[in-house]
Amino acid sequence: MDFELIKSQLNDQPMGKIVLLVMDGLGDIPMEEGGKTALEAASTPNMDALAQKSMLGLHQPIRTGITPGSGPAHLGLFGYDPVQYKVGRGVLSGLGIDFDIQTNDVAARGNFCTVDEQGRVIDRRAGRIPTEITVRLCELLSEKVNIPGVEVFLRPVKEYRFLLVIRGEGLNANIEETDPLVVGEKPLPAKAVDSESEKAAEIVQEFVRQAEKILADEHPANMLLLRGFAKLPDWPLFPEVYGLKPLAIAMYPMYRGVAKLVGMDVMPAAQSYEEEFEMLEEKWEDYDFFFVHIKKTDSYGEDGNMPAKVHEIEKVDALLPRILALDPSVVIITGDHSTPCAMKSHSWHPVPVLFYAKTCRPDEIPQFGERACLRGGLGVRFPAYDLMTLALAHAGRFEKFGA
Amino acid sequence: MDFELIKSQLNDQPMGKIVLLVMDGLGDIPMEEGGKTALEAASTPNMDALAQKSMLGLHQPIRTGITPGSGPAHLGLFGYDPVQYKVGRGVLSGLGIDFDIQTNDVAARGNFCTVDEQGRVIDRRAGRIPTEITVRLCELLSEKVNIPGVEVFLRPVKEYRFLLVIRGEGLNANIEETDPLVVGEKPLPAKAVDSESEKAAEIVQEFVRQAEKILADEHPANMLLLRGFAKLPDWPLFPEVYGLKPLAIAMYPMYRGVAKLVGMDVMPAAQSYEEEFEMLEEKWEDYDFFFVHIKKTDSYGEDGNMPAKVHEIEKVDALLPRILALDPSVVIITGDHSTPCAMKSHSWHPVPVLFYAKTCRPDEIPQFGERACLRGGLGVRFPAYDLMTLALAHAGRFEKFGA
Repeated sequence: MDFELIKSQLNDQPMGKIVLLVMDGLGDIPMEEGGKTALEAASTPNMDALAQKSMLGLHQPIRTGITPGSGPAHLGLFGYDPVQYKVGRGVLSGLGIDFDIQTNDVAARGNFCTVDEQGRVIDRRAGRIPTEITVRLCELLSEKVNIPGVEVFLRPVKEYRFLLVIRGEGLNANIEETDPLVVGEKPLPAKAVDSESEKAAEIVQEFVRQAEKILADEHPANMLLLRGFAKLPDWPLFPEVYGLKPLAIAMYPMYRGVAKLVGMDVMPAAQSYEEEFEMLEEKWEDYDFFFVHIKKTDSYGEDGNMPAKVHEIEKVDALLPRILALDPSVVIITGDHSTPCAMKSHSWHPVPVLFYAKTCRPDEIPQFGERACLRGGLGVRFPAYDLMTLALAHAGRFEKFGA
Repeated sequence: MDFELIKSQLNDQPMGKIVLLVMDGLGDIPMEEGGKTALEAASTPNMDALAQKSMLGLHQPIRTGITPGSGPAHLGLFGYDPVQYKVGRGVLSGLGIDFDIQTNDVAARGNFCTVDEQGRVIDRRAGRIPTEITVRLCELLSEKVNIPGVEVFLRPVKEYRFLLVIRGEGLNANIEETDPLVVGEKPLPAKAVDSESEKAAEIVQEFVRQAEKILADEHPANMLLLRGFAKLPDWPLFPEVYGLKPLAIAMYPMYRGVAKLVGMDVMPAAQSYEEEFEMLEEKWEDYDFFFVHIKKTDSYGEDGNMPAKVHEIEKVDALLPRILALDPSVVIITGDHSTPCAMKSHSWHPVPVLFYAKTCRPDEIPQFGERACLRGGLGVRFPAYDLMTLALAHAGRFEKFGA
């Protein structure tokens, strides 16, 4: 949405509270011809009852046909067009492991790799070494690398992947990747793309030189490759654009990280859905926007496990009355994207949305499911970033446009 | 769609095959109150069965309320926003008669006209002389015009209309038309709009001077007028933007021409629908995108002949199983625009779309028709150019956006 338009329309009224309940990867397709989706198959008496009083529809996370990663998909739900608001891979990687990236940091994604005696890459993933080895190598490098004037952080991610963060003054991140992307070539130099990034590029080169020596006797991970150099984006923040005090409640670091990026307060990691809902109840008076994230619907979609995905949806449905008991003005129930069990991956398929508000014009469709949403008042394939604007309207947050 | 976004998301996976079956002018409106459209009235058991497994919707070829010509309407279906990607009239005219316009050519549409003794236009269409006379005059001019350094081609189009092509080096086509558009005025000089077009404008002026003398004793076609000077556009091409190997199968030159413009391979003109489908089967292994064009649905719409249009749709329905037998990943059945029998012309009405894909989430609507499409998951009045992006997604062609 157009943040300038939103800001210009905001009033200073006390407002109703908004809950955005995201079941990750909620959207699905049938496993077999004529079959149901997970949401359609799930027994969801509470959502169905709420649907009767709500508007339904199907949002499109990015653009037609484009499959979103988790970061961009959530930005869309938060009202940020993900094509316009791009997060660098290095920063996303930091968000995913709960590393607290600072404004001046340069972050990058790293791979341990294997090089031959001439320094040519022969395995870009170092035989997919297990995470334990990456943990040890990150500690080794953290201990031994020494570059005056900056701090260098190394953190294991998963298997051969790690996060590199360089903290110092005057660093910019327009730096070319060192990964040649093919075997048989030497790692590329970390070249600055603009003059503001030259200092950081030199530091990265010095880091690579030291790392090469430190790793020389390791096998198979005797070298590293760096990609996705990035800094924290400088975006309009949620509280400022929407005049909202937002809280994020999520079990996994990536989702807390994206929420933090847009300026939300973030609760520590909950251990269960019940705990997430307890946090919501506990913080109800202190905030006026709540993002509650449910992870496992996506995980079971990735596993291709439809019965387990159905069961997770039913667990969330059973908890829904606790949200309604708080008397919110707006409740949005949706996913960030589709993760069809039949595809075992994220996909581009539009995502079902249930939009309840005290002031909505109900569609009177007594069921929450992909096909039911086709008939809903929100429409089909509307941009995800429209939802925040609509939520603000129903929370009584906008002035009239013109006289 | 955003070609940069599409290109940035392409993977290098082997992909499923896509068939785009276009029934020209398919969309319609009822002939009388409470009546059916041609597509609704047609008996289409094969399309209806496929609809049950597909997504339906209605595309908008250009913009709300805008009636498309055939060229722009097809560009939209090929994923090129026709408002952004404009083809000059001279080039379209050449495409329509199968003239092989080259990169450096300047093409224009011509009219034979009648002038009085002072050289003032008294009939802009020379009494609508029949095509045979235009054929003879084009041959006469081709034989007698002589301009050093360039080749000049004249080709009859229909009645008083012809195509002019000038072939040479360093020619540009920003040239003002010579048609005064009103009677009682002399033909205008062919003025260059920019300095790059001065050479071509001088050649056009010399051509007009020679033609005036050659035609002086003809009656009523004793002069000519030129409009729509244009060169071949320099656009991103289909194979490059989409990573697809495309083939066009069409009976009429215009459609083969537009396909050629975007970089498709083009089959020679077929003589029947059966022959078009034989070409599709024969070339199935060699390409991964197939554009199959059906002309007569439009022709009968222009004639206002609803029963004949219904019959053409039924003929295509009977051939549909031959496409499905090839096991495509994606089949799109639609029109380029509407040609309502009740209006006897192209129109702006949204066009029904049936989008079948192995990975689609079926709407489970058991009928293909304008009103049935209102309830479909593609939505109503979405831009035609979205279809290509969606086809690429369902053919497994895209990487994830972000992490």
